Amino acid sequence: MKATYTIGLDYGTNSVRAVVVNIANGHEVATAVWNYGHGKDGVILSRDPNLARQHPADYLAGAEASIKGALRSARRSIKAFQPDQVIGIGVDTTGSTPLPVNDAGHPLAFDKRFAKNPAAMAWLWKDHTSVAEAGEITAAARELRPQYLAKCGGTYSSEWFWSKILHCLRTEPKVFDAAYSWVELADYAPAALTGTEAPEKLTIGICAAGHKAMYHESWGGYPDEEFLSMLDPKLGILRRRLRSRAYAVDRSVGTLSSAWARKTGLKPGIPVAAGAFDAHTGAIGAGVGTGTLVKIIGTSTCDITVWPNTDKLADVPGLCGIVNGSVLPGYFGLEAGQSAVGDIFNWFVNYLQPGGRKLGSHTELTRGAARLRPGESGLLALDWNNGNRTILVDQRLTGLLLGQTLYTTPSEIYRALIEATAFGALTIINRFEEYGVKVEQVVNCGGIAEKNPLVMQIYADVTGRPMKLSRSAQTCALGSAIAGAVVAGAHKDVPSAQSAMTGLKSRVFKPAPQAHAIYRSLYALYRKLHDSFGTQQHDGSLYPVMKQLIEIRNQVRKGK
Amino acid sequence: MKATYTIGLDYGTNSVRAVVVNIANGHEVATAVWNYGHGKDGVILSRDPNLARQHPADYLAGAEASIKGALRSARRSIKAFQPDQVIGIGVDTTGSTPLPVNDAGHPLAFDKRFAKNPAAMAWLWKDHTSVAEAGEITAAARELRPQYLAKCGGTYSSEWFWSKILHCLRTEPKVFDAAYSWVELADYAPAALTGTEAPEKLTIGICAAGHKAMYHESWGGYPDEEFLSMLDPKLGILRRRLRSRAYAVDRSVGTLSSAWARKTGLKPGIPVAAGAFDAHTGAIGAGVGTGTLVKIIGTSTCDITVWPNTDKLADVPGLCGIVNGSVLPGYFGLEAGQSAVGDIFNWFVNYLQPGGRKLGSHTELTRGAARLRPGESGLLALDWNNGNRTILVDQRLTGLLLGQTLYTTPSEIYRALIEATAFGALTIINRFEEYGVKVEQVVNCGGIAEKNPLVMQIYADVTGRPMKLSRSAQTCALGSAIAGAVVAGAHKDVPSAQSAMTGLKSRVFKPAPQAHAIYRSLYALYRKLHDSFGTQQHDGSLYPVMKQLIEIRNQVRKGK
Repeated sequence: MKATYTIGLDYGTNSVRAVVVNIANGHEVATAVWNYGHGKDGVILSRDPNLARQHPADYLAGAEASIKGALRSARRSIKAFQPDQVIGIGVDTTGSTPLPVNDAGHPLAFDKRFAKNPAAMAWLWKDHTSVAEAGEITAAARELRPQYLAKCGGTYSSEWFWSKILHCLRTEPKVFDAAYSWVELADYAPAALTGTEAPEKLTIGICAAGHKAMYHESWGGYPDEEFLSMLDPKLGILRRRLRSRAYAVDRSVGTLSSAWARKTGLKPGIPVAAGAFDAHTGAIGAGVGTGTLVKIIGTSTCDITVWPNTDKLADVPGLCGIVNGSVLPGYFGLEAGQSAVGDIFNWFVNYLQPGGRKLGSHTELTRGAARLRPGESGLLALDWNNGNRTILVDQRLTGLLLGQTLYTTPSEIYRALIEATAFGALTIINRFEEYGVKVEQVVNCGGIAEKNPLVMQIYADVTGRPMKLSRSAQTCALGSAIAGAVVAGAHKDVPSAQSAMTGLKSRVFKPAPQAHAIYRSLYALYRKLHDSFGTQQHDGSLYPVMKQLIEIRNQVRKGK
Repeated sequence: MKATYTIGLDYGTNSVRAVVVNIANGHEVATAVWNYGHGKDGVILSRDPNLARQHPADYLAGAEASIKGALRSARRSIKAFQPDQVIGIGVDTTGSTPLPVNDAGHPLAFDKRFAKNPAAMAWLWKDHTSVAEAGEITAAARELRPQYLAKCGGTYSSEWFWSKILHCLRTEPKVFDAAYSWVELADYAPAALTGTEAPEKLTIGICAAGHKAMYHESWGGYPDEEFLSMLDPKLGILRRRLRSRAYAVDRSVGTLSSAWARKTGLKPGIPVAAGAFDAHTGAIGAGVGTGTLVKIIGTSTCDITVWPNTDKLADVPGLCGIVNGSVLPGYFGLEAGQSAVGDIFNWFVNYLQPGGRKLGSHTELTRGAARLRPGESGLLALDWNNGNRTILVDQRLTGLLLGQTLYTTPSEIYRALIEATAFGALTIINRFEEYGVKVEQVVNCGGIAEKNPLVMQIYADVTGRPMKLSRSAQTCALGSAIAGAVVAGAHKDVPSAQSAMTGLKSRVFKPAPQAHAIYRSLYALYRKLHDSFGTQQHDGSLYPVMKQLIEIRNQVRKGK
């Protein structure tokens, strides 16, 4: 019998990746990556450091190029491979990355009138222009619909769906008025492949809707029209154009259109699964289940675990969301995250370039950092260069480095930055467990987990827990391919497909007791800083300091 | 009539400088610098980062070489110059830099048995090995002799005379026992030139004794024998071997010995003034007087002003000392300081090397920093990489940088570090004025003040006060030359000599009102951090954080 395959299509921040996976054993037989063509590394920037957009044309060109590339590569590695052995597709994307569309569901950015207007493009997950609107939505919900906030950690983020749409409405009303509706990239991408992007045909995924758009089945889907109208009557109108039900990744959104079959060489009519965020399919591909926390460590992290939806579960404050079915159907998906991890190391290497390009490379700094013992540098850092997602849910926080002497070296700082992200990781694990979500094992995936054993060892030493690694280096795409296999009927459900298609590496990073003991002391100090700058618990709290610096910075920049 | 000259001999951290000055107008006709030969740039280091020593042989070789060099140079620039036109010498040194000596007053380091033992060398001002002993002395004085502390800012420092001697006694008893007595470099250097180094012949300066050794005329000189014996009976014995009276720089310690006259080519028998610290003679050379604060800005700063000793003066907490006659005879000398200024910028350039050697030079970073406006970076730093001298008197503090994003650049950090030192400078000015010591003008001198207009402009903008510059670039040596002129009888007193021999540059850095307004807001935030990490004022204070990090660091390093 000929092997069968599915494709996982994974939209990242800078590129899109297609992976061809054997559904029997999870073997990734071919991969192709296509870099977005617009902006800087695929991200459209402006003088406003908070702005980050993408051009939707890259999504379509990228799907075509990466799928074709992966099929070509599969043919090279497996002699008898035929594209018609691909029986399903799953899709994951960054998010919340909403884009305005017309009444046919086509991106407004394809309209000549708006071709160069960043507001008409996709508002990338890390776009932080909508801080004011996030505050407004949070305040309104806190007063009128506290239940909305309880499911998304108590604060509605500037990175999310409604904040971005409301900001567009307020600052670019022409774009807003020209749009018929808004769609998450996670829903747009599979819809484009199946020709179901028209708002009334669209199938939306529960992952984006539940984690970023305050969708919940208990109140009938998205926030109610009255609430949205109160923010702005036009949001109320938009609400009527959105779908009322959202689905997990085991639901097909349709079948590959003949146009896309022609473009890619795939068989028309194969099912495409409902889209989800990369981290969520990454968790699937890393084998997430009850008691397993999956950490997807890249420029930022997503920390994902699940809990049976038949059990009682408290609202865990500070999480990015608790959404029924957002990861595995039948389970609450719990998402936490750190706003910057690899991005902090990259900042240090690319912006500070300590020692110049040669001495200041990740490799050299890691080598130097590995020679140091915990506590030896006297340094302590906060991992907030891009704000804090979990547990503070606060963009208006910044980095901090403390303990410098006249002899502090780049390697010491590099290690302190790694440790800071590890302390952030521990804070998330603790938060889960404080609210009864037991973490029995931690499985890591993503580039940094793969490539930097020092980071993994420090995470083990700081958390006092073994750090395991996912077998796949492309768990997001693998998870999407698993979804593709389920909608194609090749596995009865996602957990069965995971059993067949996922696994762990044999190398496990075990905590060293002595290092852990020192890190316990350091973590206590980290928490002192964390709580003083990040909360208003104490009288003498330094909570206002970072906020006021940002305020002053913004005023000065405005006056430019 | 032929012009007459004096020589200012200025012992710095890395080199000794001799300057030949015309006593009629302060014209510096010749300068020679001799770099110390021992250790790294003249400083003997060890694995203990707190240790910093100097070899006394460098002091003698340096005096000879620099004086000869300056005389040669004077001959080159003034045709008719003859060494016998030099009629006096003044000496200034770093401090507190005590060294153990034998019963002839010769450094113990000259004894073969101790030739390689750092404990037998001079304990350089920035040696921080004696933190525990400083704590012990402070605690004992707080309980038994609070008056001792009141004159030196409330805390006895690890950088000072008795802390270092007690640390030697505790950790290197053989060296301590072999020493007959201890002498400050400021007293040793002039004594060596005049052959008066034997303990019973020695003339000690009020500057070192008063600022660093708890000498005060009201309790009969150095701390009493009972108190010292309580710390250790051997300190009580040492006390009996020290002199009971100390003098200002208008006192001659003796005349140039024929041996030194031969060595240098100077006329034998010319008077040598009592020694003082470089900062204090620097203040003289910059024209210090009532209402004038002199800032000597180098690797660290000394901030010096004076107050008539006929007026009432409160004990100003946090100062390095208030000593009658330590700067100008007849005036209280008030000394404050910042533990690191240029050293912080040097750390950033030399240890972090941002952007590599080319982009990370002081010149390039200054250029980048100059393009930024106050508040624009969102950064805020504490200038504590080497602890805080005034107003906290606490070595167990460390640097802090806050406000980093993923886009923070080296120039932004460099500017934040400059601003941090400016906030530190403002804190000192405010402290003076809070206790009634009016600061009517600020005169800057030292390498950074000379060379970096951006630093001066930021100091003006932060403090809201004009920053003036001393005319001389070598105020410490000039101040010593002034002392030499007074002991030679060429001027009736120090202020008369200052009128003739000192002046200001025409360029004045005036505060820009808009920048000052922003810096007022930033300074409020700086003070929040300052008070939280540096004091125990509030319940939620972060006071323990830096201390505990140092504690952990020290434990880890000990376990090496």
